[in-house]
Amino acid sequence: MSEPDAIVDEREERDDDAYALDGRTVQSILDAAEAGDADRLKALMEPLHAADIADLLEQIETDQRHRLVRLYGREFDGEILSELGEGVREDVIAALSPDVLSEAVRELESDDVVDLLEDLEEPTQEAILSILEASDRVAVEQALKLPEYSAGRLMQREVVMAPEHWTVGEAIDFLRNAEDLPEQFYHIILVDPRLHPSGYVTLGKVMSSRRDVRLMEIAEESFRTFRVDEPEGDVAYAFNQYHLISAPVVDAEGRLVGVITIDDAMNVLNEENEEDILLLAGVGDESLNDRTLEIARQRFPWLFVNLLTAILASLVIAQFEAIIAAVVALAVLMPIVASMGGNAGTQSLTVAVRGLATRDLTASNALRVIRREVVAGLINGCVFAVIMGIVGVLWFGTPMLGAVIGIAMVVNLVVAGLAGVLVPLTLDRIGVDPALASGAFVTTVTDVVGFFAFLGLAAVLLL
Amino acid sequence: MSEPDAIVDEREERDDDAYALDGRTVQSILDAAEAGDADRLKALMEPLHAADIADLLEQIETDQRHRLVRLYGREFDGEILSELGEGVREDVIAALSPDVLSEAVRELESDDVVDLLEDLEEPTQEAILSILEASDRVAVEQALKLPEYSAGRLMQREVVMAPEHWTVGEAIDFLRNAEDLPEQFYHIILVDPRLHPSGYVTLGKVMSSRRDVRLMEIAEESFRTFRVDEPEGDVAYAFNQYHLISAPVVDAEGRLVGVITIDDAMNVLNEENEEDILLLAGVGDESLNDRTLEIARQRFPWLFVNLLTAILASLVIAQFEAIIAAVVALAVLMPIVASMGGNAGTQSLTVAVRGLATRDLTASNALRVIRREVVAGLINGCVFAVIMGIVGVLWFGTPMLGAVIGIAMVVNLVVAGLAGVLVPLTLDRIGVDPALASGAFVTTVTDVVGFFAFLGLAAVLLL
Repeated sequence: MSEPDAIVDEREERDDDAYALDGRTVQSILDAAEAGDADRLKALMEPLHAADIADLLEQIETDQRHRLVRLYGREFDGEILSELGEGVREDVIAALSPDVLSEAVRELESDDVVDLLEDLEEPTQEAILSILEASDRVAVEQALKLPEYSAGRLMQREVVMAPEHWTVGEAIDFLRNAEDLPEQFYHIILVDPRLHPSGYVTLGKVMSSRRDVRLMEIAEESFRTFRVDEPEGDVAYAFNQYHLISAPVVDAEGRLVGVITIDDAMNVLNEENEEDILLLAGVGDESLNDRTLEIARQRFPWLFVNLLTAILASLVIAQFEAIIAAVVALAVLMPIVASMGGNAGTQSLTVAVRGLATRDLTASNALRVIRREVVAGLINGCVFAVIMGIVGVLWFGTPMLGAVIGIAMVVNLVVAGLAGVLVPLTLDRIGVDPALASGAFVTTVTDVVGFFAFLGLAAVLLL
Repeated sequence: MSEPDAIVDEREERDDDAYALDGRTVQSILDAAEAGDADRLKALMEPLHAADIADLLEQIETDQRHRLVRLYGREFDGEILSELGEGVREDVIAALSPDVLSEAVRELESDDVVDLLEDLEEPTQEAILSILEASDRVAVEQALKLPEYSAGRLMQREVVMAPEHWTVGEAIDFLRNAEDLPEQFYHIILVDPRLHPSGYVTLGKVMSSRRDVRLMEIAEESFRTFRVDEPEGDVAYAFNQYHLISAPVVDAEGRLVGVITIDDAMNVLNEENEEDILLLAGVGDESLNDRTLEIARQRFPWLFVNLLTAILASLVIAQFEAIIAAVVALAVLMPIVASMGGNAGTQSLTVAVRGLATRDLTASNALRVIRREVVAGLINGCVFAVIMGIVGVLWFGTPMLGAVIGIAMVVNLVVAGLAGVLVPLTLDRIGVDPALASGAFVTTVTDVVGFFAFLGLAAVLLL
């Protein structure tokens, strides 16, 4: 490889968009769509993965999207629909001509159709169900009856299984003669005569073992099954914790009904993390493609809760109007105490919320974590007390004011550490998602305590 | 299955700790360790997965951990070390007797040893390297020379490959005669005579195809290779975006040197999400097992930055001491405006930071997202202006005060939306992780603007 090539390679690599759509491609595609040049559009989009086409459709304006989808016509692939976020998906489905839509949907495996349908509105769901062939429709309708976010919704129904008494040779002969194997499979699940799974064998082991070896002998050691109604969050946790690649799903009688693979489980884990990040910031289930009004509506409740807690804090301040009127410096300094408490509390609660999500924070270590947060709050509280004490004295020339803000700082940072762990633990105990509500509670506590400690101390010490 | 069984099953399922360690098991294990009952300890720990044992060791006190590790003795498995978080890992390694440690480390594949070593302190690293056999040591040392967080660190060096001109039959014969195939493999990578990978074939396709079919003909359509020095974040993004199960890694000359599998890539994605969650809350790379002093030290910088921004906001307030002294109600109400702005800004910035992380926020839609955030801020600003205007009038009986807080609310929520997107976009553009620093900048903006708008308007309208 010549020098210049190597340099180009390196540059491409450092470009963050190396794997995503680069701006130039997007512009060329939009230009082609604008010009109505279907051939050029197809040529430009041909090398793109369905996931990238979906990203493209999400990033452009609604009218550009409609024009593009119509011009792309018959090339439109079912997989693109699977990859689209729900808001844009509805929009694209509405823009597709009926025959393109039905061809796109028929291309998909039945579990992908389930994915596609579950987030759609009822009428769109029914329109798509009516496109499917009878047998597929039954499978899809069955899957949709299972509880949302369950193992059953996640699994594929196509399973490669073998009786547990088979040998490697029998398994190989069976696979070589099988007519309709799934697109992707990595394991053979061993079942007893009642279809209860008892283990699994990786294809790698099958290929590298002698024909007369029993499948049972080369079965993997770590093996877990999931019940069809188990929450998908538990499934994702187990895949991550035990490094599973695939796992069988059984019905209430323990019979094999499907298989979940790592990619589906990791998707769930990813979505749950994403949800936690947004919930912690008071953002619901929104996407970059939602309409402005929808966004405003989604964010309103959290802001409203925050307004109530802010008013509560103001009520505390109102109790000290007299001292504030006498010493205006208090009004200048008081937001510092509240803000430091709020930040320290957010640190603690985030660590606690994640500890609960990853199941690292348990009954066994809760007390230790609480103690640790309180002591860490005390340490930082003391450091900041000294800093702010000095700032207070230098700024306003009143040593007592420095003492007041210093003590209030210690109190509020200790309380922040305590509330930061106790609030998520309590919410989790009573069955409320700690990511959802911890923030509001903890900042209420730190605001109220911060203002009360600072102004209350001032009232005692400065008057 | 009888009724009572079904009920028990359901209960177990709803228990959040179904897959983790339950409190009773932990207590029994600790009791056995306390009593020095090695047989009972082994019996209790035998059914546990290495990942669960690692969790257990992380959750208990240091002296309990040492006692347990020593009593567990020779049973100690190398995989447990791999699963431990770095702080506890150092501690456990120090507690293991030299021969148990060397046996545990020799059990591991060389890429797991790399994982194990990269987070350890230099002396511990060298002690473990000296345990390894010469050939393994060279492989590990080579891997450790690659840049941290690169594809090369992530890959396994053991690869199953075949010349691209081979048939299915040739591949099967090769695999059946191969001596040292990797523990887990799902694909055969096709290479040209210069060892450049040109595609891959899943084992499932190999098993179900006729012997005379060429491997090229059944190669998967979507195929991506990574360079050994590519950042692991890009690898994780590509696996997630394109649903890859495994992908070859090549050196600077394009020659196959290893393979990355989905479980490793998903681990990275998971870690990056976790890191983002913590960074957004101003928490660094800490774990539930860090010592208190370490925790306090880790959190200090963020709190210090927050102190500076809070002081900046106080300086703004200090400009308005006269009006506050005249109208103390302003001191009571002003934190509400700042707090609402801070929350709205956090919502916007979190959505923007995640959009950048998932590459959904790009140059193509940045302007649209900014516009959307500003308009959403305007809408909610107006709603809250009305609410707070009414509250202000009712509480203090001064219509003008209601108007002041209402207008300040609109201004601050619009600014929050604007700053919430612009700050992360700018940080990303100049190469700073937006998750790290956006929060401090955005809340500074909303605090300063909130206090200035509210008190400034008051100074104009109320005096």
